[in-house]
Amino acid sequence: MSEETPRTISLAVIPGDGIGPEVTAEAVKVLLAVTGGSPVRFELTEYPLGAEHWLETGETLPEHTLQALKEHDAILFGAVGAAPGDTLVPSGLIERELLLKLRFSLDHYVNLRPSRLYPGVHSPLAAPGNVDFIVVREGTEGPYAGNGGVLREGTPQEIATEVSLNTAYGVERVVRDAFQRAAARPRRHLTLVHKHNVLVNAGRLWKRTVEKVAHEFPEVTHDYLHVDAATIFMVSDPSRFDVIVTDNLFGDIITDLAAAITGGIGLAASGNINMDRTFPSMFEPVHGSAPDIAGQQKADPTAAILSAALLLQHLGFDDEAAKVERAVEKDLSGRDGTRRTTAEVGDAIAA
Amino acid sequence: MSEETPRTISLAVIPGDGIGPEVTAEAVKVLLAVTGGSPVRFELTEYPLGAEHWLETGETLPEHTLQALKEHDAILFGAVGAAPGDTLVPSGLIERELLLKLRFSLDHYVNLRPSRLYPGVHSPLAAPGNVDFIVVREGTEGPYAGNGGVLREGTPQEIATEVSLNTAYGVERVVRDAFQRAAARPRRHLTLVHKHNVLVNAGRLWKRTVEKVAHEFPEVTHDYLHVDAATIFMVSDPSRFDVIVTDNLFGDIITDLAAAITGGIGLAASGNINMDRTFPSMFEPVHGSAPDIAGQQKADPTAAILSAALLLQHLGFDDEAAKVERAVEKDLSGRDGTRRTTAEVGDAIAA
Ligand SMILES: CC(C)[C@H](C(=O)O)[C@@H](O)C(=O)O
Ligand SMILES: CC(C)[C@H](C(=O)O)[C@@H](O)C(=O)O
Repeated sequence: MSEETPRTISLAVIPGDGIGPEVTAEAVKVLLAVTGGSPVRFELTEYPLGAEHWLETGETLPEHTLQALKEHDAILFGAVGAAPGDTLVPSGLIERELLLKLRFSLDHYVNLRPSRLYPGVHSPLAAPGNVDFIVVREGTEGPYAGNGGVLREGTPQEIATEVSLNTAYGVERVVRDAFQRAAARPRRHLTLVHKHNVLVNAGRLWKRTVEKVAHEFPEVTHDYLHVDAATIFMVSDPSRFDVIVTDNLFGDIITDLAAAITGGIGLAASGNINMDRTFPSMFEPVHGSAPDIAGQQKADPTAAILSAALLLQHLGFDDEAAKVERAVEKDLSGRDGTRRTTAEVGDAIAA
Repeated sequence: MSEETPRTISLAVIPGDGIGPEVTAEAVKVLLAVTGGSPVRFELTEYPLGAEHWLETGETLPEHTLQALKEHDAILFGAVGAAPGDTLVPSGLIERELLLKLRFSLDHYVNLRPSRLYPGVHSPLAAPGNVDFIVVREGTEGPYAGNGGVLREGTPQEIATEVSLNTAYGVERVVRDAFQRAAARPRRHLTLVHKHNVLVNAGRLWKRTVEKVAHEFPEVTHDYLHVDAATIFMVSDPSRFDVIVTDNLFGDIITDLAAAITGGIGLAASGNINMDRTFPSMFEPVHGSAPDIAGQQKADPTAAILSAALLLQHLGFDDEAAKVERAVEKDLSGRDGTRRTTAEVGDAIAA
């Protein structure tokens, strides 16, 4: 971006439930701070969606809201979901009817989840080594397609099915994206994670697609790991990973594990990205709404702030994104165990 | 078992490929040693099955062999699978057509995988705490049912599906088994691991079944974790687990992770158990055939030996099982990094 071009970014903000609003406020603070004095201007529109909103209105994601969201340049998402004990909100409803519906409706086929162990951050691993990889999780199909059904529910003859849908179209575009990201990284290595010895139909498609797309990227080396073996390496030798590409469900599982070994989900950022830019991409911390600590300024806003950095990167503001990352890095390396409020952490990073 | 009753156990032994024969030999050695001088006699029949056997004969598990296996009291299984570079053996064929076929044909609905961090064993976790839990993995349905298909294979219009089958019958029997095991342990706690917010059909069945069976076990407490969250706790607080019950695929993933945090798959034992005893149960180390170190006496036979202890327990020889466990414990606590051959480790434990 030239320093001279004035540009207005229309940003939808969905703070959500629990700690969502608190951490999102800090991410917005940092976005405004890093672009302050530059020709970039953020125009914010807040959308009150989530479990609270559902309780008040019965709406999860109305069609007109979805259409309105499509008009923005990007979406900043906090966290959604009711407290586990909240019996008024059907379990998983908001996650499915809001979060997953956004990912699917806005064709967020790249669910990007970087995992880096920042200097000074405590890992539960005794000898983590230099952990710095990204997971490119497929975001629009697989077991998340929401297929399956139930026969004879509640009887001893009940049968329940889940259907994983995998298409050449869906797999190829995310595999190509992962190769592109691998080609742009120093180590240029890609690992496919699947379970092709058991899930043979989907597995063959994923393997064949990686072999095929690999020809377009002769500079990128690649290997394969079963998902079970991948979890072993995640704790025994996580520095072996550079770029991982995997399906929606395996990606869900291994990115939580990846977050855990790099300091916890309080630090894990993610982007739900539509690389074709037919619809806005959405950036959110990997963590949930953590209702138990909501409203107490106890939540760590770092994951939300790093998600804002991914947003900046996606919009082409690489310098600003790097600035935010450096500020986070500095803040993390200086942490000495003193308790700070959510806003204090945000202020420190913004400063 | 009374000390006086002479009893002959008819044991099928499937050494398999790679390091399978080496580690199985040590497990047999320990079985014979611990029952030597007692009225228990093992009658061994070896079955040459696996990738090598397939290359020689084209057979994976012929019908007459399956029928013969059904006549034994139990099966000791080594490991199967060709080397990754071996292009003659179709990838995953032996795993599916032999190992999984045995689990399904012999109705091994309880895939029991204990995870214990033995004193003196190195964990990759900095502060693992007191790790001692068991995973009861469903073994006969779920995504392993081998359902699904492919349309337009190899074209840009390909679609590949995987179907997870879950029945009230299948879920209830394994959940009840897990509660029974929890009731017999000091902490009496059961954790259901699933992903019911996304896999709603199967998830509802699993949750409802746990709630229902819980009434039969008022002394057992229980909770629920999404599989992604479970991987976080596995590295951040594994001592929270006592008994985990989960589906076939989630169980595959989290038991490899559980093995990794308790010293690696070189130590992880498992039982594929048919609690109704309609068919023989089968005991096998969690690890694979490790072709790269095969035939070099480098493999650790501990997982195979602990699997033999599970076999003894299943057959009612609790004292003998405990003896083997104690011998393993002693051997592990005395390990000082000196390299020993597979047979030397087996000898030490047998002694
Ligand atoms: C809330 C849930 C539906 C979601 C998922 O499974 O994708 C979450 O775990 C995540 O990883 O973003
Ligand atoms: C070899 C493979 C089919 C098997 C499984 O997935 O069950 C293995 O990983 C295991 O855990 O026993």
